Amino acid sequence: MDKVTMGPKTLMYPMPTVLVGASVEGKPNYMAAAWCSIACMAPPMVAVAINKARHTLKGINENKTFSINVPSTRQVVEADYCGITTGARVDKSRVFESFYGKLKTAPMIKECPVNLECKLFNTMDCGSHLLVVGEIVETYVAREAVAGDSPDIKKVDPLIYSDGKYYRVGECLADAFSAGKAYKKSR
Amino acid sequence: MDKVTMGPKTLMYPMPTVLVGASVEGKPNYMAAAWCSIACMAPPMVAVAINKARHTLKGINENKTFSINVPSTRQVVEADYCGITTGARVDKSRVFESFYGKLKTAPMIKECPVNLECKLFNTMDCGSHLLVVGEIVETYVAREAVAGDSPDIKKVDPLIYSDGKYYRVGECLADAFSAGKAYKKSR
Repeated sequence: MDKVTMGPKTLMYPMPTVLVGASVEGKPNYMAAAWCSIACMAPPMVAVAINKARHTLKGINENKTFSINVPSTRQVVEADYCGITTGARVDKSRVFESFYGKLKTAPMIKECPVNLECKLFNTMDCGSHLLVVGEIVETYVAREAVAGDSPDIKKVDPLIYSDGKYYRVGECLADAFSAGKAYKKSR
Repeated sequence: MDKVTMGPKTLMYPMPTVLVGASVEGKPNYMAAAWCSIACMAPPMVAVAINKARHTLKGINENKTFSINVPSTRQVVEADYCGITTGARVDKSRVFESFYGKLKTAPMIKECPVNLECKLFNTMDCGSHLLVVGEIVETYVAREAVAGDSPDIKKVDPLIYSDGKYYRVGECLADAFSAGKAYKKSR
């Protein structure tokens, strides 16, 4: 496979679109982020990279709590709006209906099918961005997005972010921890 | 929206499927991971959560280098194979054709359309997992996956991992930094 070098670039496929929730000076604020991932299984943790200049960081520092909200494709306009505006100049507290959980200070978005309520665990200073790691203390899932005992990604219908565009999740291709057995057998 | 609580759970939508490459005792090894994200813009960095018991960590500790390889749907069998086997018991050095870049010690996968060559920056001990953060020193992209001056996600055709299944990226829904303007105007 013929490769081209592009210099150091922030490429990852696919990336999610999440809304990071924090209470800044007593008001819910939501910022859009694509650089977010699970960080640990036991205890369950999440990591999100946040530009150090972001308004949202003030709330995370203030309360040591935040939330990760997964919008569905139905919230693409509102999610993108949270990505092109800053809470420093625009009041985003009414873009969504907020609710609070165990931690009391981490606002979460009712309209989003999945919400992770997080307690700040640690941060890593990486340069332009702070990698914010939180312990997930509770998970909230829309009843209609649940199939069996866990959410179904096709019902969550999340937004994929890539290079200035949003995409939907496509068809199921294979079962994990199973597809690879075909390779094993051919050895 | 009616919500159910599920306790602390490692939910994220969507998640990628990447292959973390490292040279362990002089041999290329690749492990599958879904908990991976960009961690910083300047300098470009990537974060990946790795179970502390993983064979791959030995190579990262040994060389202070690793790679993140993004397989396409064409590599679903090989990628899954790397997820159900451990380099401690199975030689995975011939599952793919490996190549090396600037750092000399981070094996990368020729067959994968995107490769990030990384120098270990820092780690965070989160519990069961170590969050491994690397500075991206070079990016390699398959020529046929490039459109204009960056890769096109539909040409990369990456694997989405969710709850024991692999999915493909679906259709484009909207332009980012643009869709939200409709919300602005309605205020």
